[in-house]
Amino acid sequence: MALIVQKFGGTSVANLDRMHAVAERALRTQREGHEVVVIVSAMAGETNRLLGLAHQVSPVPDMRELDSLASTGEQVSAALVALCVHRLGGEARSLLGHQVQIRTDGAFTKARIRTIDGSKLLETVRRGRVAVVAGFQGVDDEGNITTLGRGGSDTTAVAIAAAIKADVCEIYTDVDGVYTTDPNICPRARKIDRISYEEMLELASLGAKVLQIRSVELAMKYGVPVHVRTSFSDRPGTLVVGEEGLEAVVVSGVAYDKSEAKVQLINVPDRPGVVASIFGTLSKQNVSVDMIIQSPSREGGATTDVTFTVAKTDLARCKELIEQCARQIGGAGIEYDPDIVKVSIVGLGMRSHAGVASRMFEILAGEGINIQAISTSEIKVSCLVHSRYTELAVRALHEGFGLDRAAGAPGEDAAATA
Amino acid sequence: MALIVQKFGGTSVANLDRMHAVAERALRTQREGHEVVVIVSAMAGETNRLLGLAHQVSPVPDMRELDSLASTGEQVSAALVALCVHRLGGEARSLLGHQVQIRTDGAFTKARIRTIDGSKLLETVRRGRVAVVAGFQGVDDEGNITTLGRGGSDTTAVAIAAAIKADVCEIYTDVDGVYTTDPNICPRARKIDRISYEEMLELASLGAKVLQIRSVELAMKYGVPVHVRTSFSDRPGTLVVGEEGLEAVVVSGVAYDKSEAKVQLINVPDRPGVVASIFGTLSKQNVSVDMIIQSPSREGGATTDVTFTVAKTDLARCKELIEQCARQIGGAGIEYDPDIVKVSIVGLGMRSHAGVASRMFEILAGEGINIQAISTSEIKVSCLVHSRYTELAVRALHEGFGLDRAAGAPGEDAAATA
Repeated sequence: MALIVQKFGGTSVANLDRMHAVAERALRTQREGHEVVVIVSAMAGETNRLLGLAHQVSPVPDMRELDSLASTGEQVSAALVALCVHRLGGEARSLLGHQVQIRTDGAFTKARIRTIDGSKLLETVRRGRVAVVAGFQGVDDEGNITTLGRGGSDTTAVAIAAAIKADVCEIYTDVDGVYTTDPNICPRARKIDRISYEEMLELASLGAKVLQIRSVELAMKYGVPVHVRTSFSDRPGTLVVGEEGLEAVVVSGVAYDKSEAKVQLINVPDRPGVVASIFGTLSKQNVSVDMIIQSPSREGGATTDVTFTVAKTDLARCKELIEQCARQIGGAGIEYDPDIVKVSIVGLGMRSHAGVASRMFEILAGEGINIQAISTSEIKVSCLVHSRYTELAVRALHEGFGLDRAAGAPGEDAAATA
Repeated sequence: MALIVQKFGGTSVANLDRMHAVAERALRTQREGHEVVVIVSAMAGETNRLLGLAHQVSPVPDMRELDSLASTGEQVSAALVALCVHRLGGEARSLLGHQVQIRTDGAFTKARIRTIDGSKLLETVRRGRVAVVAGFQGVDDEGNITTLGRGGSDTTAVAIAAAIKADVCEIYTDVDGVYTTDPNICPRARKIDRISYEEMLELASLGAKVLQIRSVELAMKYGVPVHVRTSFSDRPGTLVVGEEGLEAVVVSGVAYDKSEAKVQLINVPDRPGVVASIFGTLSKQNVSVDMIIQSPSREGGATTDVTFTVAKTDLARCKELIEQCARQIGGAGIEYDPDIVKVSIVGLGMRSHAGVASRMFEILAGEGINIQAISTSEIKVSCLVHSRYTELAVRALHEGFGLDRAAGAPGEDAAATA
């Protein structure tokens, strides 16, 4: 007998038929001898409907009230899914953030979970009931309702799995797992059977949208096995686990991210403190800078070029700041380029295999793709290229590292040729 | 400075414009120097939409889940009204049943309030904030969400007013007060300025739908002055208060109720215990019997006729029971008549004025209306007549007791002629 957490997103509870299917799956799992905790999101579209009402009232609505408003979406789903379980002859109880005591800090709309009291959940499942928990919500120390921000129900699911020491946290979604790359632009992408938290974290950070970063971090911290799978069939999906027992594949996935824009400061005086002053100003305004490249000095060490990327959504508000900085520094020209993509390869095996990065550069060069910037971590290499090369670069890397072949060893072989 | 509770029903918060008007009224009251607690219902139609979803899942949905589901309607209203107050430059906090600690028993869908912790409300208003409380909901001792049944937000408002010792509980509705009778069938009906709890209770029991019986009972028990008024203007409505200081009007209102049907058992053996057995059976099945009349014995005391009324909604399920009883008793025929109306006059002054009932019979007789049954209490007289006489009876009584003239004394004059 296992203790299983099953999380269903908005499309999986989009209407009563889908909720019925969720209830059926939970009861089937129970009949197989397991204890089941279900976490539900709001019905697809409901959160946006509620927030839309709030924004009709005020362009900058109070965040405490937003959270109380938005949390009703999950409350409705939880009650209806519990009713579906009853309808099928099972027993169930819906449970809300304040009933499970999902305690968070007081940061409305993006609260972080501090503690969860697992006792009510365990009591519920031990009585043979399905516990149906409203995701995305908690309460702060004063009893105010808080919400966890984007992808919050994933976080609820993983945090609850950690609190009750569940055997697995199943995340049901509309895709059937984590892929070696985006199947929409690379038809030969394959589903990954097992992947490490670290790799999943890099893939999520690099634009793969299956799991939210926070929930992966949480799963890694508490060692919760996460099973990403589809709610439309019984096929197993992708298991995200610790790296022990995992074969260290050199490259397990190729990710791409078009959400950034490139900013280039030209002829910046090459003095100590100049670059620091630019990024200091940006970070004070909460603009996150991703890749930073400083070119070698020109004119006998007098000037340099500084290139960096920021989220396109931040670009409008940081343009003015950057121009102000440039004026203060003196003599710098500024160029903006939104037509870029960050293409990345991720793999645990990079730690022990040399030459992976240079193999990546060779593959891109072989396709005539110019690399504008590079950044690396222990288990990933990212290259900034012109956005017109997105599909070409992804497909070439996917094939070049053997990801279109069967899992495991072939990836290593491909890397070994680098 | 007064402490004022303002309750707004579903039509008063039906959309964002109406909510805006609610927020404006609360802030205006605050600017006049008062502390304001607002109680809101769900947006008109929302509770039915939610319960409709539940009934699509199951014809007999679990009541705990129904309550958790339905309570979201008031939660949404409370958050949006609080946002409207902010938008107008005021301060507000929405508060839910579990946040105010509105403790109820565990009778889902028809819970009764046990205690309310007024401290959070008082703390909120003392900081200059409008407290916006979700009506209709509470929590039981285990933290389950409960709802208070039909008209529950009125009950919430009166109970909160009692708990925080508010100076007045204003009930905003789509009519502008309590009328001497239904203006739809009697154009000369007048708004009553002041009425006692006892009279209001009788009028509510007799079919006047402005206030729910439970909230009037609660107001009477705790001496909470209730002001029934319209949300569409600033005109004062009807003040419902204790009878001290009220002029004891002989007849303050005429009510009618078409919701009952008449059942007649003919030639029932006139033996002890026969009548008791019939009503015992009905009450065991939760069928409430209203008026009961046993005619004088016939055939030398051998048989009698028994007439009573039950709610039309109960008639279908009690027909079989009654017929079973009749067979057991032996020899009884049964007649059903749904075409009846109960017409009633209500007034505190009846206690001290004789002859009010006989004046009522005279007025009805003067219009050629046959009385089928009579029942009385200390402050009301009800007559059962054929439903075709509804308008005629109501108008004749309204005029006969002088209710179409100015308030107060003229009513007494009219009665004095009886």
